[in-house]
Amino acid sequence: MKGELYVVGIGPGDEGYMTRDAGAALDKAELIVGYSLYVNLLCEQYKSKSIYSTGMGGEADRCRYALQQAASGINTAVICSGDAGVYGMASLILDLSKEYEEVDINIIPGITAALSGAAKLGAPIGNDFAVISLSTVLTPWERIEKRLKCAAEGDFAIVLYNPMSHHRPDTLKAACDIISGHTGCDRAAGYVRNIGRDEESTEVTTLGKLADMKLDMFTTVFIGSSDTGICNGKMITGRKYGIE
Amino acid sequence: MKGELYVVGIGPGDEGYMTRDAGAALDKAELIVGYSLYVNLLCEQYKSKSIYSTGMGGEADRCRYALQQAASGINTAVICSGDAGVYGMASLILDLSKEYEEVDINIIPGITAALSGAAKLGAPIGNDFAVISLSTVLTPWERIEKRLKCAAEGDFAIVLYNPMSHHRPDTLKAACDIISGHTGCDRAAGYVRNIGRDEESTEVTTLGKLADMKLDMFTTVFIGSSDTGICNGKMITGRKYGIE
Repeated sequence: MKGELYVVGIGPGDEGYMTRDAGAALDKAELIVGYSLYVNLLCEQYKSKSIYSTGMGGEADRCRYALQQAASGINTAVICSGDAGVYGMASLILDLSKEYEEVDINIIPGITAALSGAAKLGAPIGNDFAVISLSTVLTPWERIEKRLKCAAEGDFAIVLYNPMSHHRPDTLKAACDIISGHTGCDRAAGYVRNIGRDEESTEVTTLGKLADMKLDMFTTVFIGSSDTGICNGKMITGRKYGIE
Repeated sequence: MKGELYVVGIGPGDEGYMTRDAGAALDKAELIVGYSLYVNLLCEQYKSKSIYSTGMGGEADRCRYALQQAASGINTAVICSGDAGVYGMASLILDLSKEYEEVDINIIPGITAALSGAAKLGAPIGNDFAVISLSTVLTPWERIEKRLKCAAEGDFAIVLYNPMSHHRPDTLKAACDIISGHTGCDRAAGYVRNIGRDEESTEVTTLGKLADMKLDMFTTVFIGSSDTGICNGKMITGRKYGIE
């Protein structure tokens, strides 16, 4: 008998962000597969299940293992921080699933950092927005650059994932410079670090100041559109509902 | 004593998509405020609370009422379908809250249609993406046009909210034409109607065919980037994890 495979977005960490369906999938799973850091975010009841975790870069190996286990009859959950689909494992699992056609795949969405981070800063993505990862591990910088330029030109509110790391200390500044070429340096901006985890921190600032900040991979950055204002320390990207 | 004001993203409808925090906020609320259609999506236990609902266009009125009630000591939840911040009431509540500084505002994110719809279609937003509403009620068409053009030029996967309505039967076709000017008509596309509700339906197709479809306000549209393929009827926007 074949097992079920769940690809589960667990949200940013704190259990309060997890959906009921995500919780139900983890309850049903006999085996939990994920990046070690995300496995550590799970609450104790799930950590006592069988766990297969590997480090960064082990994505294809983890996903193949999960498909094999599900094919052999074991209900398996692949966990993703945030959403299952937004920079998550859903695309990789579906790509690899061609070799495991007998496995039923259930993709369970979760609260991605664009949503959880936005709620911490106010309402920075209250109108059209673009989400861009600055990580060059899987995408060449030229493509990222082009997307930053187009997002700024289109006057989107912009959410940046993976703004910088030890290996690429300059990507956030480079991105801010591209965007401020269109918007100027006074554009409202902010970031949230460790959303829903210990030592969460937030700051609302300007694009000019953001460019020189030292952030990390656990930080999500928000840059306003021309409609974004700052009020009582919150970023607000309004749609005009007839108020003034 | 002042009350709490919760701005709650309840997800697409089905309770399984609701986060634990959203459920806890609705439990604590003595009064629930929302667009009539969304109030109807709530399960019975919440419908038996005090409800203030109005139709489309009554957003500012509803939000002012909610702030007044919270200021007078009543724990109040303003509900939003999907997320609280993405085309939700968070920005309007924060805008209006200047007059109610004594009210504590808690924004609780929810699963927006970009995430829930993506999970139904596979993994169409597995890499950088842009979210654009085609509704001209609060945004002039010229700005929407410009964003469509920039999103296509930047090779984003694109999610369209409010693709068409009785009042604007031509916006979806106009949007598809702008995008296909950059991508061609064979680009992978799909839609999900009534996500997580009765009569949910999905289709995976091409941008050329999508342009001539009759959809509605309850439909979310996905248009792939140059990295999006269709496999076993699913849209997959891969990041390359070293598999081939």
